[in-house]
Amino acid sequence: MIIIKNGTIVTESESYCSDIMIENNKISCIGTNLSNDNAEIIDALGMYIIPGAVDVHTHMDLQSGNSRSIDDFYTGTVAAVCGGTTSIVDHVAFGPKNCALRHQIDEYHKLANGKAVIDYGFHGVVQHVNDEVLSEMESLAKEGISSFKIYMTYDFKLDDVSILKVLKKAKELGVIIAVHAENNDVINYLRENYVSNGCLETIYHAKSRPDHCEAEAISRVLHLAALAGDAPIYIVHISTEKGLDEIRKARAQGQKNIFSETCTQYLTMTEQKYLEQDNNGLKYVMSPPLRQSNDIDALWKGVQDGAINIIATDHCSFNLKGDKQKGINDFTKCPNGAPGVAERVRVIFSEGVMKKKISINRFVELLCTNPAKIYGLYPKKGSLIPGGDADITIINPNSEYTLTRSMLHGAVDYTCFEGMTLKGDIDIVIQSGKVAYKNNKFLGKKGDGKFIKRKVIG
Amino acid sequence: MIIIKNGTIVTESESYCSDIMIENNKISCIGTNLSNDNAEIIDALGMYIIPGAVDVHTHMDLQSGNSRSIDDFYTGTVAAVCGGTTSIVDHVAFGPKNCALRHQIDEYHKLANGKAVIDYGFHGVVQHVNDEVLSEMESLAKEGISSFKIYMTYDFKLDDVSILKVLKKAKELGVIIAVHAENNDVINYLRENYVSNGCLETIYHAKSRPDHCEAEAISRVLHLAALAGDAPIYIVHISTEKGLDEIRKARAQGQKNIFSETCTQYLTMTEQKYLEQDNNGLKYVMSPPLRQSNDIDALWKGVQDGAINIIATDHCSFNLKGDKQKGINDFTKCPNGAPGVAERVRVIFSEGVMKKKISINRFVELLCTNPAKIYGLYPKKGSLIPGGDADITIINPNSEYTLTRSMLHGAVDYTCFEGMTLKGDIDIVIQSGKVAYKNNKFLGKKGDGKFIKRKVIG
Amino acid sequence: MIIIKNGTIVTESESYCSDIMIENNKISCIGTNLSNDNAEIIDALGMYIIPGAVDVHTHMDLQSGNSRSIDDFYTGTVAAVCGGTTSIVDHVAFGPKNCALRHQIDEYHKLANGKAVIDYGFHGVVQHVNDEVLSEMESLAKEGISSFKIYMTYDFKLDDVSILKVLKKAKELGVIIAVHAENNDVINYLRENYVSNGCLETIYHAKSRPDHCEAEAISRVLHLAALAGDAPIYIVHISTEKGLDEIRKARAQGQKNIFSETCTQYLTMTEQKYLEQDNNGLKYVMSPPLRQSNDIDALWKGVQDGAINIIATDHCSFNLKGDKQKGINDFTKCPNGAPGVAERVRVIFSEGVMKKKISINRFVELLCTNPAKIYGLYPKKGSLIPGGDADITIINPNSEYTLTRSMLHGAVDYTCFEGMTLKGDIDIVIQSGKVAYKNNKFLGKKGDGKFIKRKVIG
Amino acid sequence: MIIIKNGTIVTESESYCSDIMIENNKISCIGTNLSNDNAEIIDALGMYIIPGAVDVHTHMDLQSGNSRSIDDFYTGTVAAVCGGTTSIVDHVAFGPKNCALRHQIDEYHKLANGKAVIDYGFHGVVQHVNDEVLSEMESLAKEGISSFKIYMTYDFKLDDVSILKVLKKAKELGVIIAVHAENNDVINYLRENYVSNGCLETIYHAKSRPDHCEAEAISRVLHLAALAGDAPIYIVHISTEKGLDEIRKARAQGQKNIFSETCTQYLTMTEQKYLEQDNNGLKYVMSPPLRQSNDIDALWKGVQDGAINIIATDHCSFNLKGDKQKGINDFTKCPNGAPGVAERVRVIFSEGVMKKKISINRFVELLCTNPAKIYGLYPKKGSLIPGGDADITIINPNSEYTLTRSMLHGAVDYTCFEGMTLKGDIDIVIQSGKVAYKNNKFLGKKGDGKFIKRKVIG
Repeated sequence: MIIIKNGTIVTESESYCSDIMIENNKISCIGTNLSNDNAEIIDALGMYIIPGAVDVHTHMDLQSGNSRSIDDFYTGTVAAVCGGTTSIVDHVAFGPKNCALRHQIDEYHKLANGKAVIDYGFHGVVQHVNDEVLSEMESLAKEGISSFKIYMTYDFKLDDVSILKVLKKAKELGVIIAVHAENNDVINYLRENYVSNGCLETIYHAKSRPDHCEAEAISRVLHLAALAGDAPIYIVHISTEKGLDEIRKARAQGQKNIFSETCTQYLTMTEQKYLEQDNNGLKYVMSPPLRQSNDIDALWKGVQDGAINIIATDHCSFNLKGDKQKGINDFTKCPNGAPGVAERVRVIFSEGVMKKKISINRFVELLCTNPAKIYGLYPKKGSLIPGGDADITIINPNSEYTLTRSMLHGAVDYTCFEGMTLKGDIDIVIQSGKVAYKNNKFLGKKGDGKFIKRKVIG
Repeated sequence: MIIIKNGTIVTESESYCSDIMIENNKISCIGTNLSNDNAEIIDALGMYIIPGAVDVHTHMDLQSGNSRSIDDFYTGTVAAVCGGTTSIVDHVAFGPKNCALRHQIDEYHKLANGKAVIDYGFHGVVQHVNDEVLSEMESLAKEGISSFKIYMTYDFKLDDVSILKVLKKAKELGVIIAVHAENNDVINYLRENYVSNGCLETIYHAKSRPDHCEAEAISRVLHLAALAGDAPIYIVHISTEKGLDEIRKARAQGQKNIFSETCTQYLTMTEQKYLEQDNNGLKYVMSPPLRQSNDIDALWKGVQDGAINIIATDHCSFNLKGDKQKGINDFTKCPNGAPGVAERVRVIFSEGVMKKKISINRFVELLCTNPAKIYGLYPKKGSLIPGGDADITIINPNSEYTLTRSMLHGAVDYTCFEGMTLKGDIDIVIQSGKVAYKNNKFLGKKGDGKFIKRKVIG
Repeated sequence: MIIIKNGTIVTESESYCSDIMIENNKISCIGTNLSNDNAEIIDALGMYIIPGAVDVHTHMDLQSGNSRSIDDFYTGTVAAVCGGTTSIVDHVAFGPKNCALRHQIDEYHKLANGKAVIDYGFHGVVQHVNDEVLSEMESLAKEGISSFKIYMTYDFKLDDVSILKVLKKAKELGVIIAVHAENNDVINYLRENYVSNGCLETIYHAKSRPDHCEAEAISRVLHLAALAGDAPIYIVHISTEKGLDEIRKARAQGQKNIFSETCTQYLTMTEQKYLEQDNNGLKYVMSPPLRQSNDIDALWKGVQDGAINIIATDHCSFNLKGDKQKGINDFTKCPNGAPGVAERVRVIFSEGVMKKKISINRFVELLCTNPAKIYGLYPKKGSLIPGGDADITIINPNSEYTLTRSMLHGAVDYTCFEGMTLKGDIDIVIQSGKVAYKNNKFLGKKGDGKFIKRKVIG
Repeated sequence: MIIIKNGTIVTESESYCSDIMIENNKISCIGTNLSNDNAEIIDALGMYIIPGAVDVHTHMDLQSGNSRSIDDFYTGTVAAVCGGTTSIVDHVAFGPKNCALRHQIDEYHKLANGKAVIDYGFHGVVQHVNDEVLSEMESLAKEGISSFKIYMTYDFKLDDVSILKVLKKAKELGVIIAVHAENNDVINYLRENYVSNGCLETIYHAKSRPDHCEAEAISRVLHLAALAGDAPIYIVHISTEKGLDEIRKARAQGQKNIFSETCTQYLTMTEQKYLEQDNNGLKYVMSPPLRQSNDIDALWKGVQDGAINIIATDHCSFNLKGDKQKGINDFTKCPNGAPGVAERVRVIFSEGVMKKKISINRFVELLCTNPAKIYGLYPKKGSLIPGGDADITIINPNSEYTLTRSMLHGAVDYTCFEGMTLKGDIDIVIQSGKVAYKNNKFLGKKGDGKFIKRKVIG
């Protein structure tokens, strides 16, 4: 039993001082002057107590071409929990051609089970569409896989009719479809053009994926969702002003059930990063790429006014001194992805809350409550309520420090935010009723994380 | 000590099942399986438990011309609490010409003290501006009067420069200025025109106050607030689409600290009501008047998308068989105002939540939490948190009934919503830790309500 | 030599009384009190004198599947000129698979030469893309084919990369790309669904081509045009509010060189027409289909505020008692297309100008001047200036009549506008300096029309 | 008789090569290869031939407080015609308190008659409202005074009800009301504040008239115009983004008959000018003041997209070494106004057309045709049509030069645009059929200008 005393409890809508009692792995009670002789007391005076953050966009142990991401479900979730995140919903990798949905889900259960230190769910991945696949969506939803990812780019991209079929099924089941929206063919064409013209430097990763490719695909898939009866749709990692404009347009036309995500990196860095010396630009090779400053401004505006619902990470880590080096002479050879699960809570708290771009309540909404609500983890996750899981992050707003890789946990050898001055640090993280992070140390246990059967939102 | 068990606790952002323990007049604890041998148990199975509603726009015991509103602080607050509202912030009446702000505050303390059955605050009223008045704003703010009303119409309306001075002071102090925004001169001109043309029927009350008069005044005062450095400003009883458009315009231009209110009646009835037979149209004579159906649609849209922050009542009751009859031959003679404090929670719950126009969380936000937050009553009021005041309304969503005057409490002899079919009823209301309403009976005690020292929002 | 006296000359921007002198096939002079002993005098008192209308969207002598449109370049241009239209730019049909652009241009020169009674140009059609085709665009542009059509639906639709290549070439050359924008795959899927469910009635032609399919494709191709450096792009036959919204969105984002067309039918009729008895709904089978009343309202608003640049016809006629009957038991078997070249000037003058939706100047802009300017026929066509071609339509605004097929010229056996009451009739049409229509009779000569070498707009 | 040969005739919508014949004071004919043995030939090869520009906002011979503007109707119209402007509509000054409208019209006939070298009209000025004044509006309209100015600031400002009465009368008569829209009371308050705080430097002229004061007044008067049944209203000298936003808002709401003007100076200079050394900032003291760069951007955008209808000058000249010096120690003492009638055509041609912000057709629309159309001078003025007045400006686009005061005509001792590099110069100006400006010399005759009886637009 733990009692957290004297802190400020912060939810999406409230900030107030009260004590929290944890019994077993649940919050049992929130009240004034709670006490119990058996309780371990945590004094949170001057601290913010928030729901453990939820990251609904990670790629742990991902096989991507001939590279495998460096964080498995152990190191990745250690990085997460030491970064204030107590649940993830991981995007499972593509499986063999024509494999069943279940094939990859089974695979990921094996990868995560016994390793993850925090609770986890999976988004199914739809890499082809036929009656069996549509039928599997239903059976998997009953097993707690209540969302599915589709790609409009990469090898297993779906064509428009397949997307429409998936969306109709999603509407019927009340599950949500997460979409990586970029125009595949145009990007391939531009990439080939750059390559054949000898434009191989890292910056061409950005140049070959222009903002209109993202915006076009978002517009297309939103129209398809409308055709499917306003099927629940979630656009991942929106990185551009024009992309966000498409979200606004569709909502202004009255379309329902549209959800949107951006990531830490798109709110903080521009494509100038690709020009860093000594090939350090490879750190930031991810898709979509970093963008322009007008995009950053537009995304923050969306974060403020509600156009953006979630800030996630798209955590997908490769070592800079490892696989990332494949891109040294040709940007197309660099594995796509960057770490972020360790940094998100810290960076957004500092850049958003401490710089007064957003309130701390909005911060909780974007990183904790909305992810849980939209993806069916709520109210167990993303909340601070009696009966809810005792996943709690305690933030000290009075700390100021320079972020470096060595402070962070996990396997990867760099952070995109190296050298950034941050205000506000994570003090303690409680996962499932136990202190999992304190004094900058991971205190949890390998394999303690459990699979979360998520609800449909229908 | 009371424990409410088995209900669904609803806040602005959460809906979850838990028990609530009340000790003295506070919520002491929210938790699972709470028990105490000394506690009275309320079984709320199947019920919604919401924060007691807050009405920040009432006029109790109001002297208006040669009429006095029929509800004093006793009957009016009985009507309120039996209608699910556990706090009010009352707009004090105009005082004698050139009187100090304190004059009316003192007067209202006398009117409310010993009578009110729920907690209450006052908005000061600024009816002229000079250095003494501006200085009084500061001293009253320290005494818990953290908001002031100004009028752009009626006898004590302020001119633009006076408004600007008040707004600058408000910005300095962090207090909020509530504004009745209508273009006085144009309305007077139109009224005189109608009267001199023999257009004396009740409908001309609406015709003489066109939507552009409201929108113009809102635009003007928002520009003045911007000039005052984005002073905190609150537009009361917005009744028109064009008026709301002005709010949207100013926010789109980046103006901060704009808050907006509409009232139950503007969301539910059109000016057709003025044509009711047997002079029943006099029931609805209020300013601004009832409007058109496009206005209703626009206001609901604002309620849904956040353009409207609060739904209040502008409760100001006169008996239909009493003072309202003064208008029988000339609409300008009818005292302006209508009752609403008893009906708001019921009507908006039914029209908004049960008809799926808004979620129950948004309902709580609009009627409970936002009023408390914007007017400095939060977190004591408008919340369900340990340490907060034990003001709680329990709603039974499964009731269906036809509203009639006889079900309601308070002094006035009619309701504007007579005969309306409603879904969802108020089951129990707890005020300051005691059951004040149950089985359709008022169980509280005259004088139990206390003055609330409100905070500045600075 | 002809002198038109006493009429009101109307251009895009001016309305004034003056005389016009025609010598050879040109306007030689506009002036007051012109006279010449050798001149034939036309008295236009009370009449409007406008530039001969230009229809940039016709399909004469079109082979479409196993049907051929009933109007060849003779009957079709007779219908046109008797309907006030003195120039057309025809969309050439698809040719054999992999044929050169020139193949179809050569074919159409043969079809038109010696038959057309008014001047004509051709839009090339790009049905596949490779280096030869891109190179042909340049050579054809030099021969006066300064625009090319692409399809996003039907068998020869282009994929996104091909479209991008065409648009880049167009940007380089200063030619304009006309686009039929509908999402091919989704439409095919929906059609197959309806057919396999036995939904074969004519109304399913509309149901299988929902507005989102048009809007999606417009959005996509506009993004591609932006990627091509704001290549000149022209969206043909916009039929939906959502489609037009995409045009507005792109322009609001600052994209240049976007042009837009709607057609007479989309401004005047809804999909209810498909339910006409006795299979008369087949008359209106065209792609895109007739839409809803909100679309009509949105399109007229676009016509008024400039969002729409041109009103054309998409004239493509099949006999109702002929090929149209193929669709009697299955809407997918009905050849797509409807007549309109004879009706456009009359219907839009009556519905637009006489019903005060648009000024007569805007009418001239939409039907005469803009088509000529955007497609490189200006200032020879679409204008009333000395040195310009003497193509003139004289309208009598004081006529009122009921439109029936028998009043119209051309080969097709019906009009979509049968029974419509119209105000304003075409009095006289002068084509290339000669009276070609008068007293409801065609007075021109087969083969008098000449090919127009159009300019690039670059 | 004059024939202008070989030039490019430019109207609002057309650009084409043709000859123009002038007989007496009219354009008699436009045609190809015009010739006449008696004609003086002007060779305009390489030149643009545009309608003589119309300036609908000048203040000649204005008594303003204890200063009188330095340009009377002789020097002012010489400056105008040498600057390409061939007609003005002058805003008559305030008269004695309670004087009849006719008093000032009579006065101005005396001031202009025998002096003006170009044609002129007058806007009446409504400085108080009663039945006589409203009745005079009708009689003056019949005499060709088809527009009236009202002020929302300065001593003779009208209150809201008076404005409403004027607008209702205007709607009835079909005359247009030009409005100087600034919030008088707030500006006076801010001015007094600055003065009493010793803020007397020229820059405080701008600081004391913030953009919200303009926008507020525009919003107010547009609402009043809507109340008057969409009365024809014209907002003069819009100088701010926020002001223009109000125009856009009202039009988006469907309000008709709104017209808008900006002036050369608001499109080219910011308030930084007030900081020029040696008190040169006094040059730019005018109301409204120069603004910020975002305002310039917004105004150009309005010029491009049609939100702005007219570019005028508000020409009101005082000598820098004369009356302007009154402001040397106190900005409030400086007479408001600056010259501009000599510069407008040159500056806007260079900044707008040559810098490709607007087409030359749009240039003609903004400076020539729209002023003539909106104020009832069309089609005699603002056009190039047979029968129209032979007022023609010939522009040489190939000239490049630095503007200095010595190049300009008129009485005032400075130009706001001193030292500006311009492309495109005025070559020849023909006024009423005679060459009035050539080789940088005024060739006209004092008193040749005639009063223009303007039409109502109703």
